[in-house]
Formats: sequence, structure tokens, C-alpha cells
Amino acid sequence: MIIDCHGHYTTAPKQLDDYRKLQIANCECGKSHTLLPRPVFSDDELRESVENNQLRMQKERGTDLTIFSPRAVGMGHHIGDERTSIEWSGVCNDLIHRVVTMFPKNFVGVCQLPQSPGVAPANSIKELERCVNELGFIGCNLNPDPTGGMWKDAPLHDRSWYPLYEKMVELDVPAMIHVSGSCNPHFHATATHYINGDTTAFVQFLTSKIFTDFPTLKFIIPHGGGAVPYHWGRYRGIAQDLGLPPLKDLVLNNVFFDTCVYHQPGIDLLLKVIPAENILFASELLGAVRGVDPETGFNYDDTKRYIDGASIADEAKQKIFSGNAKRIFSRLKV
Amino acid sequence: MIIDCHGHYTTAPKQLDDYRKLQIANCECGKSHTLLPRPVFSDDELRESVENNQLRMQKERGTDLTIFSPRAVGMGHHIGDERTSIEWSGVCNDLIHRVVTMFPKNFVGVCQLPQSPGVAPANSIKELERCVNELGFIGCNLNPDPTGGMWKDAPLHDRSWYPLYEKMVELDVPAMIHVSGSCNPHFHATATHYINGDTTAFVQFLTSKIFTDFPTLKFIIPHGGGAVPYHWGRYRGIAQDLGLPPLKDLVLNNVFFDTCVYHQPGIDLLLKVIPAENILFASELLGAVRGVDPETGFNYDDTKRYIDGASIADEAKQKIFSGNAKRIFSRLKV
Repeated sequence: MIIDCHGHYTTAPKQLDDYRKLQIANCECGKSHTLLPRPVFSDDELRESVENNQLRMQKERGTDLTIFSPRAVGMGHHIGDERTSIEWSGVCNDLIHRVVTMFPKNFVGVCQLPQSPGVAPANSIKELERCVNELGFIGCNLNPDPTGGMWKDAPLHDRSWYPLYEKMVELDVPAMIHVSGSCNPHFHATATHYINGDTTAFVQFLTSKIFTDFPTLKFIIPHGGGAVPYHWGRYRGIAQDLGLPPLKDLVLNNVFFDTCVYHQPGIDLLLKVIPAENILFASELLGAVRGVDPETGFNYDDTKRYIDGASIADEAKQKIFSGNAKRIFSRLKV
Repeated sequence: MIIDCHGHYTTAPKQLDDYRKLQIANCECGKSHTLLPRPVFSDDELRESVENNQLRMQKERGTDLTIFSPRAVGMGHHIGDERTSIEWSGVCNDLIHRVVTMFPKNFVGVCQLPQSPGVAPANSIKELERCVNELGFIGCNLNPDPTGGMWKDAPLHDRSWYPLYEKMVELDVPAMIHVSGSCNPHFHATATHYINGDTTAFVQFLTSKIFTDFPTLKFIIPHGGGAVPYHWGRYRGIAQDLGLPPLKDLVLNNVFFDTCVYHQPGIDLLLKVIPAENILFASELLGAVRGVDPETGFNYDDTKRYIDGASIADEAKQKIFSGNAKRIFSRLKV
């Protein structure tokens, strides 16, 4: 069995985008509290939107189950206010639930949180509980920068995050660290902000006591961990200079990396420096990079090929393809 | 011959730090325009500060020449105002000049620019010209974020940078992209901000017309290019999705990466995905990571060992160790 732990619903019917545009327009003219009628989707529309995309690609690439969440760049936590994010998250998460219910063998849900700049992360607990307890979701995407590239709110080790972590531990759900769009002209969303967000979160884990305080808290850092595996020596050395325990003891009980690295040498590095137990197969479908690599003749994001092509033991591949996901997403029943 | 293109004067006599502390204290109490007496250093003090450190390590590690610049985290462009940065850069650059003049076979100078938040990059031209024309420096360190982790000033493709680029082209000096300290609690300076700064600058190059407008402009991205080589497939794919030329054609005439990656697998990846012509040997001495790697028994930052240990042709090693530096730093006479 092959579980893709990082898939986004980037192909939702047009009504979703229309709704969001109207919501943003309201925010921009100071009417963020206007409650809009939620978009309506027919089963046929939803079926078509995934059958021609994610489902087709699962079949083509030979994967079985996608851990499925709303479009990441669309979360846009920096837009509007808390009410905006609550409504928008509700709409997006309900839509994921519709798809998951329609194709229970192919998708399982992970939710977007209604984070908002300056708003306590604790305020996201209600939606997390709803998604896990009522909709059967198995995790959440957590934005380490709800200010959209301005990095103005509190870092992940700030105590304001702790109630959310407590709830994650209680529900036994992991979070994927995932920034959203960027309103900072320095940061291209998928090329810069995503990768920097991953690296930033990792160092916040490294330099804090989060995992002393929450020994069972689990985070997945996507996009192969940002810059982290490439600079694993640097991070081992910095931890050592800071008088901390060896890096693997410090973070690898709690931090996992996905395989959204779009070339064989990058995947080979990841597999070499990070233990197989800490790597989860993922492709980011349909995501940041959609083209065919002229060097291989296959899609850049066809990451299964890189794992298949890697010189590691079958046992390690099995962990990466499904064993680790089953362990880390304890609510995943397959 | 082995040229280390990335060394910082992190071991300057205590007077330098005392001077800076006083300068910062003045900024903090609104007296940033108070002109302080510049610190005084004896030749013996300077000699001792490098003989026991950088010079000793050159000998121990078998390198010959270090391209030497002021302490990067100390540049602190976000502190005080333009006057603060002009004075501080003058002090730091003059100090580099003293050391370089004292040990001309071992060091050659690269300057810090007097950048300051909200101040036109063009205002750094005067100090660049002084350092190159009067002090014999061969390049500069350019901070893509003089706001110290707030990323508030204009990105590198903004026209406000162009006068500085014109001067770099005229003088035929490359710049190393190098952020300084971070006043944003999200970003640890050497673990996060440095690496994110490198990745950010690279994507700004990728997504802009800088090298169409300045075909001979040259930038070195340190720390092995941040996250870039690890995500080379992602960046090739994003360039392709944007309808841009192949990534190598887009940036590799103008962008070079150093070898400050502190473990063998990271260096192996760098050497595999980036052409040897675009890699410059560097160690960041004495820099971000000072310890001994228990996995190897040698210093993390003893990067020469990783190049020595890499499976690449001798010709490629020669380019990385000195050939490329001689070509890119055209003012370097060795």
C-alpha cells in the first residue's frame, strides 16, 4: 500500500474560488463580517474535479491513498480577520469531507485551521475538534506564519501555541507545518515561502523545549524538510554548539519529513541523512510544480519514481510508503 | 592553490565590540548621530587575533588564501540609521584592510556595505568605490534584507538596486549575498536567517530580469546556496512552469554557490547537481559552527575534507578550489 501524506484539493469547482474572491472583496472594503452564502457543489461536480485529476494520477502513478487537505496557498490566513478565516476554513474543510466521503478508499481528510494574524492559536481548537471528531479527519495543517510572509506573530515555541498542542496531543493528531500565500514581495509562495517556512519551523523546534513539554507531539515538515536535510551537518553542529543533545535525539521522535523533493539527487540525500522511520511518502499533488522534467521524461512531482529508484532496502521503502504514515497518523484506519 | 572565498573576521580585538556596543547604546537612546572616536588597534593585537585563529587554521587545513570580510552577523544593518551603518562599515572595512595589508599572501579584502533600512542601495556606492579603488578590495557582501529579518525593504529586483549593480559591473566586482543578524524572533541568525536569505535571493534572481539587464553581474550565494541545490528539481520545474528558459541558462552565468555545507552528503549533492564551474570553495571560518563532528572526528566546517573526499574529477576540484575564484573575482591577483 502506498499512502501519499501530502495532497491538496487544488482542483475544486470554480464556485469555491468565486466565493473566496467575494469574501476577499468584502474584506478589502471593510465588510469582512458580511456572512456570505456558502458555495454549493453537486456530487457530480466534485466527482469530476477529482476523477480527472487526483484520482487519475493515483492510478497512473500507482499510489493508493492520499491524505487530503485544502489548497495550501489558498488558506490565506493573512487575509481578512478571524471571522474570515473561520468561515473560509469551514467551507474548505467541509468540501474535503465531501470528497473523502465520496471516495473513502482514496482519500482521508486533514484540515485547514482558522488561524488569523494576532489571534490566539487556541482559537483554532474548535475547528480542529469539529474536523477530527465530527468529520473523521486525521490531522491538520498548521501555518507557522499566519501573517503571510511578514512573520509578525509569535514563533512556534511561544506559549500561546501550547493550548493547540495540548489539543493535538489529546486528539492524537499530527500537524503538517504548512505556510500559505505570501503578501511579502520578497517571498514567492511556492518557491521561497514554502521552503523557508519549513526551515524556520525546524529551527524553532531545535532551539526550544516544545518536545520536552509535549513528548508525543508530532509534526511533519513538508517539501523534504525545506533546507534541513541538505544542511543536516550544520544543524547537528549548531545543536552541539548550543550544548543541546544530539540532533536526532532532540527532534527525531517528533519531527518527520515528507518526500516532496523533485529530483533524484535530492531524494537520495534525504534518504541518506534522515532515518527511514522519519520519512513519509508524499507528492504535493496537484501542487507547486506541474510540468514534465525533460531530463527524465516524467513529471517532476512523480516522487514515487525517486523512491523506487533509490538504493535503500525494501523494508525502508515500505516504511516510507505506508508504515510511517500509519504510525504517525494514529487515527488512520486502513 | 586553495582559495577560501568566504571567511569572516570574527576574532577582532575586543575594542571593536566595545565600540559597536557604544554605538548601539547611542542609537537606542536617540543619539545615533553622535560621532564616536574610532577604536584603535595595535599591529600586535591584529597579528595575534588572526595568527591564533584564521592563519593557524589555514595552515592546519591546507588552504592558502582567504577572501576576508567583516563578521557577517555583526553588520547589523537594521541597527540605527544610515549614519550608524556608514561609520560602522568604515571601521570594519578599514580593519579588514589592516589585516590584509599585514598578511597579503593569506588574505584579500571584501567589504561590508553601509546599507540601512529605507535607504537607497545607491548610497552604498561610495563605500564600495573606496574599498575597491583605495583599499584594493575585490568584492562586497550585499545584504538582501537590511531590515534584519523583517524583510521590509525592496527585493533585489527592484530598480532601486540598479545603481549599485551598475557600479559593481563597472568595477567588475562580484557580491556575496549575505544577510546579517535577525531582530525577528522567528529567525535564528545562523541557522535560519542565513539559509532563508540565500534561498530568497536565488528565487528573486530566478523570477526577475536582473541578468538580462546586467549580463555580467555576478553573485555568490553562500552556505551552499541555502536550500537551492537540494530543491534544484523544484526550481527547474518552477522556472519551466513560469515559461522561463532552463534554469541553468537563466541563472548559472551569474550565480555561484560556495561550499559552506557541513557534511559529506550535502557537499556530494551540491557537486552532483551544480556544475563545477559554479562552485567556489569556502568554509565560513570562523563562523557559524565551531565544533568537531563526532561522526568524523573533524571540524564540521573543515569543508576541504568533503571536497577532497568527493568522487569528482581533479579538474573539477581545481576549479572549485581556485580556478573559479580567480575567474569570478577578476581583481584577485595571485
